[in-house]
Amino acid sequence: MKKLDFNCDMGESYGGWTMGNDEAVMPHITSVNIACGFHGGDAHIMRRTVANAIKHHVHIGAHPGLNDLPGFGRRPFPVSPDQAYDMVVVQLGALAAVAKTQGARLHHVKTHGALYNMAAHNDALSQAIAQAVLDVDDTLVLYALANSRQAHIAQAMGLQVAHEVFADRSYQDDGTLTPRGAPGALISDPQQAIQQLICMLEKGHVIALSGKPVPIQADTLCIHGDQPGAAAFAQQINEALKRQGLL
Amino acid sequence: MKKLDFNCDMGESYGGWTMGNDEAVMPHITSVNIACGFHGGDAHIMRRTVANAIKHHVHIGAHPGLNDLPGFGRRPFPVSPDQAYDMVVVQLGALAAVAKTQGARLHHVKTHGALYNMAAHNDALSQAIAQAVLDVDDTLVLYALANSRQAHIAQAMGLQVAHEVFADRSYQDDGTLTPRGAPGALISDPQQAIQQLICMLEKGHVIALSGKPVPIQADTLCIHGDQPGAAAFAQQINEALKRQGLL
Amino acid sequence: MKKLDFNCDMGESYGGWTMGNDEAVMPHITSVNIACGFHGGDAHIMRRTVANAIKHHVHIGAHPGLNDLPGFGRRPFPVSPDQAYDMVVVQLGALAAVAKTQGARLHHVKTHGALYNMAAHNDALSQAIAQAVLDVDDTLVLYALANSRQAHIAQAMGLQVAHEVFADRSYQDDGTLTPRGAPGALISDPQQAIQQLICMLEKGHVIALSGKPVPIQADTLCIHGDQPGAAAFAQQINEALKRQGLL
Amino acid sequence: MKKLDFNCDMGESYGGWTMGNDEAVMPHITSVNIACGFHGGDAHIMRRTVANAIKHHVHIGAHPGLNDLPGFGRRPFPVSPDQAYDMVVVQLGALAAVAKTQGARLHHVKTHGALYNMAAHNDALSQAIAQAVLDVDDTLVLYALANSRQAHIAQAMGLQVAHEVFADRSYQDDGTLTPRGAPGALISDPQQAIQQLICMLEKGHVIALSGKPVPIQADTLCIHGDQPGAAAFAQQINEALKRQGLL
Repeated sequence: MKKLDFNCDMGESYGGWTMGNDEAVMPHITSVNIACGFHGGDAHIMRRTVANAIKHHVHIGAHPGLNDLPGFGRRPFPVSPDQAYDMVVVQLGALAAVAKTQGARLHHVKTHGALYNMAAHNDALSQAIAQAVLDVDDTLVLYALANSRQAHIAQAMGLQVAHEVFADRSYQDDGTLTPRGAPGALISDPQQAIQQLICMLEKGHVIALSGKPVPIQADTLCIHGDQPGAAAFAQQINEALKRQGLL
Repeated sequence: MKKLDFNCDMGESYGGWTMGNDEAVMPHITSVNIACGFHGGDAHIMRRTVANAIKHHVHIGAHPGLNDLPGFGRRPFPVSPDQAYDMVVVQLGALAAVAKTQGARLHHVKTHGALYNMAAHNDALSQAIAQAVLDVDDTLVLYALANSRQAHIAQAMGLQVAHEVFADRSYQDDGTLTPRGAPGALISDPQQAIQQLICMLEKGHVIALSGKPVPIQADTLCIHGDQPGAAAFAQQINEALKRQGLL
Repeated sequence: MKKLDFNCDMGESYGGWTMGNDEAVMPHITSVNIACGFHGGDAHIMRRTVANAIKHHVHIGAHPGLNDLPGFGRRPFPVSPDQAYDMVVVQLGALAAVAKTQGARLHHVKTHGALYNMAAHNDALSQAIAQAVLDVDDTLVLYALANSRQAHIAQAMGLQVAHEVFADRSYQDDGTLTPRGAPGALISDPQQAIQQLICMLEKGHVIALSGKPVPIQADTLCIHGDQPGAAAFAQQINEALKRQGLL
Repeated sequence: MKKLDFNCDMGESYGGWTMGNDEAVMPHITSVNIACGFHGGDAHIMRRTVANAIKHHVHIGAHPGLNDLPGFGRRPFPVSPDQAYDMVVVQLGALAAVAKTQGARLHHVKTHGALYNMAAHNDALSQAIAQAVLDVDDTLVLYALANSRQAHIAQAMGLQVAHEVFADRSYQDDGTLTPRGAPGALISDPQQAIQQLICMLEKGHVIALSGKPVPIQADTLCIHGDQPGAAAFAQQINEALKRQGLL
C-alpha cells in the first residue's frame, strides 16, 4: 500500500517576527517546505529550520516564493516565465547550500502562495519553474497541485512530481479545488477531512462537491502550520492514517 | 612572472535602479564579484551579470554582503560569527545556482562593504566566513585584504586566498590601508597608481605613506566600477600592466 | 488664456541607487510629484527633493505608490480600498511633514505606477484614494488621468482635480490613452507631441488615433523624467508653450 | 500627588507577521508608542493601532526607528544627525496623518531600539531628534531615558520631556541603567520592581545597585509588551500604583 507524504510550509518567520508553529508541527510531518528569504525566512531561520528537519528525519524541500516580503508572497502580480525561472533558481541554490553545510540534501520543491496558484494553471510559468528545477538539480521532486497543468507539464518535462492534495478543502468535478471564497470550499470537520483523504488513498478518487467521484492521485498532503490547532490536526491525521497503514 | 588579477564589484543594481557601469567595465577585468541580493542585486540581475561574465571570460565570484538593502551593506553593525556564516552560505548558494544554470562555476568569494571591513581585522568573523566558504565549496578562492587578519586566518584554515591590493589607496607602515578620511589616503594620479601597482608586483613591497617599503603580496587588484571614469581607468591600468607583461 | 501645469515624478532614487535626472529636469517644470518611500525614495531623498523644488519654485506634490520596492510600485496586484486608503494617508503625512520642516506645504497628490493605473478606472479605489486625500488635507489637488473615472469621482467628492494629459501618447475615441503595447500608442516626434498639446489647450480636444476629435481637459502635462533626453524634451515643450502664451 | 504614565511599544507587527500582545496590553497602559513603518509596522497596522488606542483612551505617540526592517531597528550603526532628523520627520508625519484621519492627534514621541540607545548619550543625535520634533510639531512630548543627555538637551531646546524609567531594570550610581548583560541588570521579582517604582515616585530617587540612593525623575514607565506575561505584569503594576494613588 502506498504511503502518504505529509508536507508543511515552515521557516516563514522573518527577522524579529515569528510565524507558524514549526517546533510543534515538525514531529508530525514527513516533508517540510522551507521559505528561502523571498516571501519570508532569512539566512538564520533557513539554517535553524533545516536543522530541525534533520533532527526529525523530515524531507527537506525548498519553498520559493515571489520577491514580495510586504505581501508575504501572496499578492498575485504578473510574473514572466524568465522572472519565475530566476526567482526559483536563486532560492533553490540558497537553501541547497544551507542543507549542504549541515550534511543534508534537498529532496523537493514546492512553490509558495501566489506563485503556486499562478503556476498551477499557467503553462508558461509551469515550464519555466520546471526548467529551473531541472537546471539546478534534476533529482528534486516537484510538489504540485494534483490534477493541475503544472503537474502534467513538469512530468512531461522529466521531473518527478508529487501530486498534492488537501484534506480540508473540497474538490470540483474537474479535479481542482473549490475556490476559497465559494460555499463548501472548506472542510472543517476533522473526521470528514480524514475520510476524504482515506478515500483518495484507497480508491484513487475524491468525491467532488457535486457528489461525483473524480480521479485524483494523492502523493502528498498539505498541512497548514499557521492555524491554531495545526499541530493537533497534523497529529490526528497522522494517527488516523497510521491506523489504516497509509503512513 | 606572476600575472595580476583584476577584480570589480558588479551586479549591484536593484529592481528598477541601476548602479555602476557593468557593461563598460566588464571587458577590462579578469574577475567579477557579483552581488547576491542582500545589499544589492536581485535574481534577474544575478543572471544577467553571470551571463555577461561568461561572455567576457571573466572569473565569476560571489560578493556576499550584509542583509541591509537600505544601507547598501555599508552600514557597520555588530554581526555575530553565526550570522556572518549564515549570510555567506545563503549568498554563495544562490549565486552558485545561477552560475550552474548557465554551465559555469563560481571561482571566488569576496565579502562586501561593512562585512569586508569588519572581517578584515576580526578573527571570529574571519573564521566564520572562511568556514562558510569551506562548507559550501572548498575549491573557492577567498579574496581578502592583503596583510589582513582575514587573509592569514583563511589561509591557515585551508582556503586558497588571493591578497587584494588597491592602486588608488596609500598604505601604512603595518601594510594596511590608510583610512579613507586621513590625509594622503587616496591616490588620484593614475600614473602614481600604476607605479604603486608595478612596484608591488615586481618588488613585492609597497612604499608606505611614511616612505618606508612594506612587504605586500599583490594577487588581485580591486577596481571601483561605480566611479566616473571607471572604465577608462580600468583600461589604462590594463594596458600599462600588459606592456609590463604583468597581466 | 489658461496656463498649463508641467508635472514630473521625482525623488525616486533609493538609498545608494540613483534614478532619474531630477537636477536637470526640475528647472523646466511647474509641479513635482515626489515619491514617499513606498515604491522609491527615502527620508533623505524626500528632504533633498523638496528642497530642490522650493529652490525652483515648483509646486510640491506627494506621489504615493504601492508598498512594493522590488517592483518599483509597478506590479499590479489586487489592492482593497482600505489598503489604498491607508497607503495614501501614510505617504501624504510623511511628505507633508518633510515640506513643513522646510517652511513649505503640499500642493497636490498624484498616485504612482500600478496604483495610478488601477485607480483610473476602478471606482472603489478612486473613492478610497479621494477620501484619504480629503481626510488628510482637503486643500490638495488630485492629479488624475484626464477623462478617467478617478477624475470624475474625486471631483464629485469635492476634491479639486487637475486632469492630466500626455504629449507623447496617443488617445482613443473614448478619451483614454491608447494602451502602451498597441500600434501608434507612442508619439516619438517632438513636434507632433507639441502640436497635440497645443490642440488640447487651444481647442479643448485631442485628435484620437482614429482621426476623430475627442473632448479633453488639459490641466497638467506629465513629463517623464527618467528617459534619456527628458530634460531636453521638457525644455523644448516649455519653450514652445511659452511662445504660444500657454505657460 | 503626581500620577505616573504607563507607556508601551506597539504596532510592531509587519505584513503577515504578528508581534506583541497589543490587544491584551492596551487596556492597562496610558500611552502607546506606535511603530511608523521603518523598523516595524505598516500602513494598515498603524491605522489599526491608532484606532485601538483611541478606543482605550490611550495617548498616541510615534515610535520612530532606524530604517532597518531586517534588524527590527535594533542593529546599531552610525547615523548622522541629518539622517536621524530625516527619519524622525518622515515617521512623525506618517503617524500624525493616520491619527488625523481618525480625529486624533499625536501626544508624544519616543525613539526606538538602537536609535533610542544611541541618542540617549549622543548630543548631536539628541539635538537632531529634538529639532525634528520641534519642526514637525512643537507641542509633542519627547519620552527620553531619565537622567540621559537626550532628556537634558531636548529640555534645553524647549521640548517638553517625559523622563522614562524602568521597573524591571536596576540603576547605577550615575542614574543610568545597568547594562543588560551585567550582573543584577534585570529585576525579575514583580514585588521588587513595584517597590523600585513606588520609591521613585514617592521619594524621587532610586536605590542603585550599589545601595546608594540616586535622584531620578519618573514621569513615564516603560512596559515591555512583547514578553510572555506582559499583560499580567502591566495589570499588576497598574493595580499596585492605583492602590498607592500613584496612577
